Amino acid sequence: MAAVTERPTLIRGGIVLPMEGDRVAHDPGSVLMTGETIAAVGAVVEVDAHPAAAAAEVIDAAGCAVIPGLHNGHLHSGLLRGTAESMALWEWLQNHVDPAHRALTPEIAEAASYMAYAEGLRGGTTSVLDMWRFMEGSARAAEEIGIRATLAPYTADRYDWFETLETNRRLLESHHGAADGRVRIWVGLEHMFYCSPEMCRAAAELAAEFDTGLHTHSSESIWEVQECLRQFGRRPVEEFYNRGVLGERTVVAHGVWLDDREVSLMAETGTALVHCPCSNMKLASGPARIGYYRSQGVTVGLGTDGEKENNNLDMLEEMKFASLLAKVAALDPVVGDPWDVLDMATRSGAAALGLGDATGTLTAGKDADVVTVDLSGLHFVPVLHGRDFNAPAHLVFTASARDVSDVWVRGRRLVAAGRVVSVDVSAVAARAQAAAEELFERRAALAPI
Amino acid sequence: MAAVTERPTLIRGGIVLPMEGDRVAHDPGSVLMTGETIAAVGAVVEVDAHPAAAAAEVIDAAGCAVIPGLHNGHLHSGLLRGTAESMALWEWLQNHVDPAHRALTPEIAEAASYMAYAEGLRGGTTSVLDMWRFMEGSARAAEEIGIRATLAPYTADRYDWFETLETNRRLLESHHGAADGRVRIWVGLEHMFYCSPEMCRAAAELAAEFDTGLHTHSSESIWEVQECLRQFGRRPVEEFYNRGVLGERTVVAHGVWLDDREVSLMAETGTALVHCPCSNMKLASGPARIGYYRSQGVTVGLGTDGEKENNNLDMLEEMKFASLLAKVAALDPVVGDPWDVLDMATRSGAAALGLGDATGTLTAGKDADVVTVDLSGLHFVPVLHGRDFNAPAHLVFTASARDVSDVWVRGRRLVAAGRVVSVDVSAVAARAQAAAEELFERRAALAPI
Repeated sequence: MAAVTERPTLIRGGIVLPMEGDRVAHDPGSVLMTGETIAAVGAVVEVDAHPAAAAAEVIDAAGCAVIPGLHNGHLHSGLLRGTAESMALWEWLQNHVDPAHRALTPEIAEAASYMAYAEGLRGGTTSVLDMWRFMEGSARAAEEIGIRATLAPYTADRYDWFETLETNRRLLESHHGAADGRVRIWVGLEHMFYCSPEMCRAAAELAAEFDTGLHTHSSESIWEVQECLRQFGRRPVEEFYNRGVLGERTVVAHGVWLDDREVSLMAETGTALVHCPCSNMKLASGPARIGYYRSQGVTVGLGTDGEKENNNLDMLEEMKFASLLAKVAALDPVVGDPWDVLDMATRSGAAALGLGDATGTLTAGKDADVVTVDLSGLHFVPVLHGRDFNAPAHLVFTASARDVSDVWVRGRRLVAAGRVVSVDVSAVAARAQAAAEELFERRAALAPI
Repeated sequence: MAAVTERPTLIRGGIVLPMEGDRVAHDPGSVLMTGETIAAVGAVVEVDAHPAAAAAEVIDAAGCAVIPGLHNGHLHSGLLRGTAESMALWEWLQNHVDPAHRALTPEIAEAASYMAYAEGLRGGTTSVLDMWRFMEGSARAAEEIGIRATLAPYTADRYDWFETLETNRRLLESHHGAADGRVRIWVGLEHMFYCSPEMCRAAAELAAEFDTGLHTHSSESIWEVQECLRQFGRRPVEEFYNRGVLGERTVVAHGVWLDDREVSLMAETGTALVHCPCSNMKLASGPARIGYYRSQGVTVGLGTDGEKENNNLDMLEEMKFASLLAKVAALDPVVGDPWDVLDMATRSGAAALGLGDATGTLTAGKDADVVTVDLSGLHFVPVLHGRDFNAPAHLVFTASARDVSDVWVRGRRLVAAGRVVSVDVSAVAARAQAAAEELFERRAALAPI
């Protein structure tokens, strides 16, 4: 793995969107990194005048957008991509997803995390919140690849093959704060129906004990809300509130069907939400009222969900879906503005994960998590400056992961000219392919479909 | 420009989806092309046994999907990409789009078509239906780039800067059937409110006179339907029917808000529809009931709409939006199946454009319009065969234009290893950038925003 550059790095002359302040752009602008930290951000001439700039290695960012690293706030590592499509939710879960969980091994799980993190990183994702199993392997993948990873095991006590609070505790003890804090362990909760109320309370207590976060997915489908009302007499977020699960260190994925009272509970408790538009469309969950949630003070990040619900981990594409789903659901072209969606993927995404002090914006003093997106392709023509400035729209509506050029995490260049350099991607792909084939063989042997 | 290969070409050992029959795949399979024509399609060993195979140039398609060329059934060449976002429709049209039309020149228009066709081709689009202006330049662009282009000028008689039936007639006389029939001229109709009833009837007569097609966009927004009811006492498709515009050679884009009677009129008259999901989401038009339209016998193709409504011309991405919009609009994950969406972009797309006999499927005897998509990237892992076959899902949910490897139109290889080889893309980009800057200067001078 490449060592952190001792020499400062100057990303010079790009279209810099620091994602702090109100729609600020430095065009042309620069970002200066010293060690793991951002030393300066601003107009080219300003940053050139910084004492550290003269000795810096210069990256010519002409024709590139320069943005903070993207935060994928809800992800499941996995290997089922494209294999069980166009099914009703129950058939999909019962016949494909659950049997794959039964067939999973630690080795297969690790191969899946290597794939997910490398794929995400290549597309500008510098931080993931991953809910998966056997996550010692996920920690190894994150450590080697160089991405930030917050690992929240699938814990449950009403199924026999998931993680337990005991294994979650062991992971906290062994891996929380690994890789100089790049790897964090949170407490994970599988769907409410898989977890007893007692377990939810114990999960919140475990998170408090380790002063760490808690992650779950909820209110994804209207069926889930109805079933929750039937079983518990409350809607899911109310039920979670009663179980002591909400709070400033808690992140809830999806939240498609929150009513206004649930939104208030999220805002009052400081619980963050991660919006997964592709998944919510593909599983036919519905369109979440993200604009309303944000207006009420809920911090909203963005996530791809897993490879089986999307079917890629492309945060740039996810931004397009976030904007366009908002527009069509409201029948209002004014909502889902590119700046707002970029905010969800960067500043608010980091804040949702409790990383707002360290990253999420290009700000002097924060960690150097930086992404350049090459806007020189024909599909970005024209690139315009000043009055007709269109870089934010290009990023949200036109770009995909393949347009990402360079990625730094804590000042370490992990992607260079569109290639992941921290790990051998061909080997990651070959290992994941073999692991998937093994998983499907094991699944077929366990539970013939 | 590269000459048509005299030697046969054998695309060998890929995952071949011919898009005819019921979910047929040859895996591994091959496509043999002789001259401009497909000579054989099938399993590797079958195609190897064809008399022309022995002498063929072999393209190793291992790790690639091999599909028919994609048909972008509704496109506007243009240069406004990303410059007027998050606006109400009327503000957008009045302050940005219409003034740009006033400022347009033939030279600027030609640069826009070069960009649009090269961008589309790079992503596997082998055929476009383009509604634009000064389309002699569009014909030149299509001829040089090698794409199939059906050109339908924006004609109107209630605005002063659009094309007229007279200029449309001149284009028919000068360019219909150019480039050995690759370039076809149709009659175009701008929105109904810009065209008198008399002009619509004359347009249909002009199309009949030249035995050619007719293209318009309609029923895009609910406002348009309401305004049509107010002005004419009928819904748009009923009004078009009354004006003699519907028929087997007519293609209507959008059709978001068709009621059941309008769907019946489309089906009875053989009028085809082109679905533009990104545009319909981005402009907040709404979700068209595509599954219902198809069930009633309407031929439905797929289109990107223009660079200002999307903001790219990526038909692979458009397929993902088509599927996911269908699912979320119906709250049913079973609809929008990958095979159905692939059909809209290929077989049905060609049929909508009246090209079903020549192209749209990989069938011996049809023109050799073939696309290979490289599935070797990490974001496609795993690629599975047999029981867990996932190539259709990969194409619709995971792939983007950048994954296209090779494109042939009528046997001529126009894209090789991800690079357009029929035209200098850098020159196309530079010319389009300069043309856009000129357009914006001219627009600002004409109508300060």
